[in-house]
Amino acid sequence: MTVTYTFLGKGGTGKTTIAFATAKRYASQGKKVLFVGQEPASILSLILGADIGPEPTEIDSNLKAVNIQAASLLESGWEELKKLEAEYIRTPFFKKVYGQELGVLPGVEGILTINVMRGYSSSGEYDVIIYDGTGDKETLRLLGSAEIMSWYIRRFRQVILDSDLYKAISPFVQPISSAILNVDWTGDNFSQPTEKINELLDNAKSTIADPNRVAAYLVTTNDKAAIATARYLWGSAQQVSLTVGGVILNQADLVDNITAESSPITAEFAPLSVTPIPRRSTEDWQPLMDALPDFSQAVKAPKPMIIDIDKSQVSLFLPSFDKKQIGLTQYGPEVTIEAGDQRRNIFLPPPLSGKPVTGAKFQNDYLIISF
Amino acid sequence: MTVTYTFLGKGGTGKTTIAFATAKRYASQGKKVLFVGQEPASILSLILGADIGPEPTEIDSNLKAVNIQAASLLESGWEELKKLEAEYIRTPFFKKVYGQELGVLPGVEGILTINVMRGYSSSGEYDVIIYDGTGDKETLRLLGSAEIMSWYIRRFRQVILDSDLYKAISPFVQPISSAILNVDWTGDNFSQPTEKINELLDNAKSTIADPNRVAAYLVTTNDKAAIATARYLWGSAQQVSLTVGGVILNQADLVDNITAESSPITAEFAPLSVTPIPRRSTEDWQPLMDALPDFSQAVKAPKPMIIDIDKSQVSLFLPSFDKKQIGLTQYGPEVTIEAGDQRRNIFLPPPLSGKPVTGAKFQNDYLIISF
Repeated sequence: MTVTYTFLGKGGTGKTTIAFATAKRYASQGKKVLFVGQEPASILSLILGADIGPEPTEIDSNLKAVNIQAASLLESGWEELKKLEAEYIRTPFFKKVYGQELGVLPGVEGILTINVMRGYSSSGEYDVIIYDGTGDKETLRLLGSAEIMSWYIRRFRQVILDSDLYKAISPFVQPISSAILNVDWTGDNFSQPTEKINELLDNAKSTIADPNRVAAYLVTTNDKAAIATARYLWGSAQQVSLTVGGVILNQADLVDNITAESSPITAEFAPLSVTPIPRRSTEDWQPLMDALPDFSQAVKAPKPMIIDIDKSQVSLFLPSFDKKQIGLTQYGPEVTIEAGDQRRNIFLPPPLSGKPVTGAKFQNDYLIISF
Repeated sequence: MTVTYTFLGKGGTGKTTIAFATAKRYASQGKKVLFVGQEPASILSLILGADIGPEPTEIDSNLKAVNIQAASLLESGWEELKKLEAEYIRTPFFKKVYGQELGVLPGVEGILTINVMRGYSSSGEYDVIIYDGTGDKETLRLLGSAEIMSWYIRRFRQVILDSDLYKAISPFVQPISSAILNVDWTGDNFSQPTEKINELLDNAKSTIADPNRVAAYLVTTNDKAAIATARYLWGSAQQVSLTVGGVILNQADLVDNITAESSPITAEFAPLSVTPIPRRSTEDWQPLMDALPDFSQAVKAPKPMIIDIDKSQVSLFLPSFDKKQIGLTQYGPEVTIEAGDQRRNIFLPPPLSGKPVTGAKFQNDYLIISF
């Protein structure tokens, strides 16, 4: 079983440094670790003091590292995709296209990243994966893609099936998706989502929602904009059911007399624990590695959603929002939660599905909805 | 004529602060200024000390500010789009969809942003627009969207026209694009791109490529990763024909005895000028405003591409790359330049179009291609 940790926070707070220190610490404890970066190679090498290429490569005992770049992912998968397309489509579209040419399209990088991450996680080769992405809304969108995709399928299935557009493109959807997502969808298509696709999405969703498998930690400095950004991302993470395990206060040696208990930001992130970490001032990673929190404590952090069938209640953790910012609407089997500039659609499990909302209250950062 | 300035650099280098100081300086000089932010409202307010909403609002003499959020843009344009769709399409797809629900789709935010920016720029209300985006590859992708779109049209026009997929979707492309891009495409479609669409893209491309209309400045601190990121973005900006006018070395008061001439990074960004700026340490913006460079000097910076018809030469500015990282291929009327992990397709003007490449050399950061 592989656990993936990632870090969220404002740019410049030291996410990449903390991520690499975390990878080194797990490796030093004998865990098999993969560090996944996603920055131009030259910059990543500078920060880490190690060269990291497009394939997982051992850079230290127990520690492999890889730098995911859309350009090279596209190049390697392209020929296969073209072959597939030529089999299925009379007038192939991709025949004369170079894979890399698609890298500029919005969304392509995200799909490729989530797919390659899924591969690393299911390979069984690693105990711990450290994903050093952009650490902002983009990372959350990426981790939430199964949640979003499965919502789209529920939400638009009938609308799409009834549309002229779908009738026209349906022969192409399956072969191309299979090639890109590397899943055998034979006998499956959008109009009859059979086990395979539902299983894939349900697996992905339950993996993201399980703090034994995936958790995020917030990284901030004592800067007020960095703290506000961390709080915003804390709230946003809940919308994609990602558990936030704790807070790392980086460069804590710049703040006077700080301990875990006296941190000036403890109240703003309660009930999460705040771990002060010193600046990285030398080439020695050990002081950082020693100061890091125990990431497995993420399982004790508040869950993004708790469904209590007996009480007919759903509780949603919505930290960093106040009551006035929260709205609730019901549309068919879905309940829609608006929190600040965010919106989330919740599909209720069978016993609650279709029941009308009878009440809602906001208590201890949880929105408790009764049916 | 409106000029738009934007800032590129690593997270945490102070791009938003510099951008706001720039807006304040132009306003103090009597120019009509619009500051465009794109962050969660709570965070932007914290950094700027001013509340900024989803519509341009006067926050100071000559200075309006707006915070673009995809969620609210979607909401306001949605009803209109649905009405349009219902007129053109027998089985409307959007009828039962809330605008905000599409905000989670990749790419939607970018399209909305570029469209609303175009509106501000062509309104004639502003002398200067300061765009404070993410300041990374995402901003470049956004500013490059006309370049990318027009390349796609050239590159895939015939492939698309021949495809079954296009034949199926062609009736829908026009009305929906018109609604989203707010352009009257009547009588136009993909198979016969008439004046309107070509004009739109050509205008957008020449606007981005004209340093009198749009320019970017790099922001960095003395941190080595921040410098490497700025250099990487400098190279990347050329790929979308965006002029980089200069470099701002933020927090220069943390570096000993620094002047514009003695800056430790001057050599790394030559021939651009490096302007040291002090940290923002008080609520007073004046010291920052006074230290800023003269942004109109961007017209003197190296042009991303120089076409010399008489000499049959095209020169491409490719800073931050070395000769070994650069590759050149020719495909039909297009020339493709690979630089590091980037790729760019150049469509040659008529006198050079179709001519074979006869030579190429790399000189003073320019790739000079002869035909």
